[in-house]
Amino acid sequence: MSTVTSDRIWTAALIVIGDEILSGRTQDKNVAQIASWLNVQGIRLREVRVVADDAAAIGEAVNILRARSDYLFTTGGIGPTHDDITVDAIAAALGVDVIVHPEAEAVLERYYRERGGLTEARLRMARVPRGSSLIPNRMSGAPGIRFENIFIMAGVPHITAGMLDALTGTLEGGAPLLSGQVGSWVAESEIADFLASTERAHAGSQIGSYPFFREGRVGANFVVRATQQNVLDSCMDALVAGLEERGWPVTRGGI
Amino acid sequence: MSTVTSDRIWTAALIVIGDEILSGRTQDKNVAQIASWLNVQGIRLREVRVVADDAAAIGEAVNILRARSDYLFTTGGIGPTHDDITVDAIAAALGVDVIVHPEAEAVLERYYRERGGLTEARLRMARVPRGSSLIPNRMSGAPGIRFENIFIMAGVPHITAGMLDALTGTLEGGAPLLSGQVGSWVAESEIADFLASTERAHAGSQIGSYPFFREGRVGANFVVRATQQNVLDSCMDALVAGLEERGWPVTRGGI
Repeated sequence: MSTVTSDRIWTAALIVIGDEILSGRTQDKNVAQIASWLNVQGIRLREVRVVADDAAAIGEAVNILRARSDYLFTTGGIGPTHDDITVDAIAAALGVDVIVHPEAEAVLERYYRERGGLTEARLRMARVPRGSSLIPNRMSGAPGIRFENIFIMAGVPHITAGMLDALTGTLEGGAPLLSGQVGSWVAESEIADFLASTERAHAGSQIGSYPFFREGRVGANFVVRATQQNVLDSCMDALVAGLEERGWPVTRGGI
Repeated sequence: MSTVTSDRIWTAALIVIGDEILSGRTQDKNVAQIASWLNVQGIRLREVRVVADDAAAIGEAVNILRARSDYLFTTGGIGPTHDDITVDAIAAALGVDVIVHPEAEAVLERYYRERGGLTEARLRMARVPRGSSLIPNRMSGAPGIRFENIFIMAGVPHITAGMLDALTGTLEGGAPLLSGQVGSWVAESEIADFLASTERAHAGSQIGSYPFFREGRVGANFVVRATQQNVLDSCMDALVAGLEERGWPVTRGGI
């Protein structure tokens, strides 16, 4: 147990690749899914970019973000069709060749044996930047790809979920971010100053305020985040006590 | 009617601001909502970034993206609480002061007259970068903000929607992107080469392939996009004819 290690904040970035997200046709689910998964690994998602199926846009984002976070994830563009250019774009950005990964080819060979055979288009899904390892995909055969600190994942959320499962517990991370939540039927603007002073009084805590309008009334949930349990607890206690003193009863866990 | 104008592609970028998106707590809806709205305005969403409630991260993204797209939208961080720092971060990035906009103050004064009065925290929502105009908000009083080509919008999706309504038809845009869709119970990998050659044969068209697994079977929807109706029509016709020739009946409009 070293203090240096436990204080280090491990970070990740995510690139969501796909014209279908930028056109509004498809509602992205991977940002929230990967963010939640990273929290449990003790890694903070620091930045997300959504880029088109365009090699230059993908390459630019990859080279900037892999340098400034500990881990870089990408989703989308690793299927069998002509608009799936993620592997080629990333390999070009890294300056490495694309090769057919023998283990990926064997996985696809087995998967498609009873499903019409391994066509040339399907074999595209075995192509990886030279030097990559594979991320198992128990949902649909075609694996994800790891190259150094870059994790190249599927775009379809339930396939991405399977790849995340396969990675769970395998990444070096820092202290998990703890959180607690309370809700109250209060307009956040009534207590904005109180929230700010409570956060300031508890170093290492963060208070997020999430207003809503339901059943004809305004209310808000308040989420306290900290990496240390004692900081989380004392900030939560102060928040609850302060709200109740001001005449706003709270619901533990949120409304 | 000049050819130059109609051929120009108008572009936008979007910055989604908020720790709640990066922590996975909140599922973003604004990317899809703004993308769809932009399509109808004849403007293409080219890039999205999701950044934390952090002045440096917001400022960096604003200065890069406002320079490389015709329009820049931001969502989130314009409420009354201490974690709402969007206006200050953008003003700092632009090198302009923050002022209380008199018209915004009057709007908030009226809105809160029957709702507990205009407190100091609520008055924060009248603060704008000097030189801004307002975007009406019929949902909840606090207006959005326009500064040159930057549109600073709410984070709560139904409030953002109201602001987009107020902007509809007011932005200069190019030719709207037209689209058509067909679906078929085919594995996309079976017809990947046909899709690629069909797209190549119809300059100005784009074919997106969106596989799914339903009712125990694989299928895919195919979306053709083009700015010219005749290009869209001929590409769609070729796609439908080619699929049916290959033994894959299509459903117009998608499955």
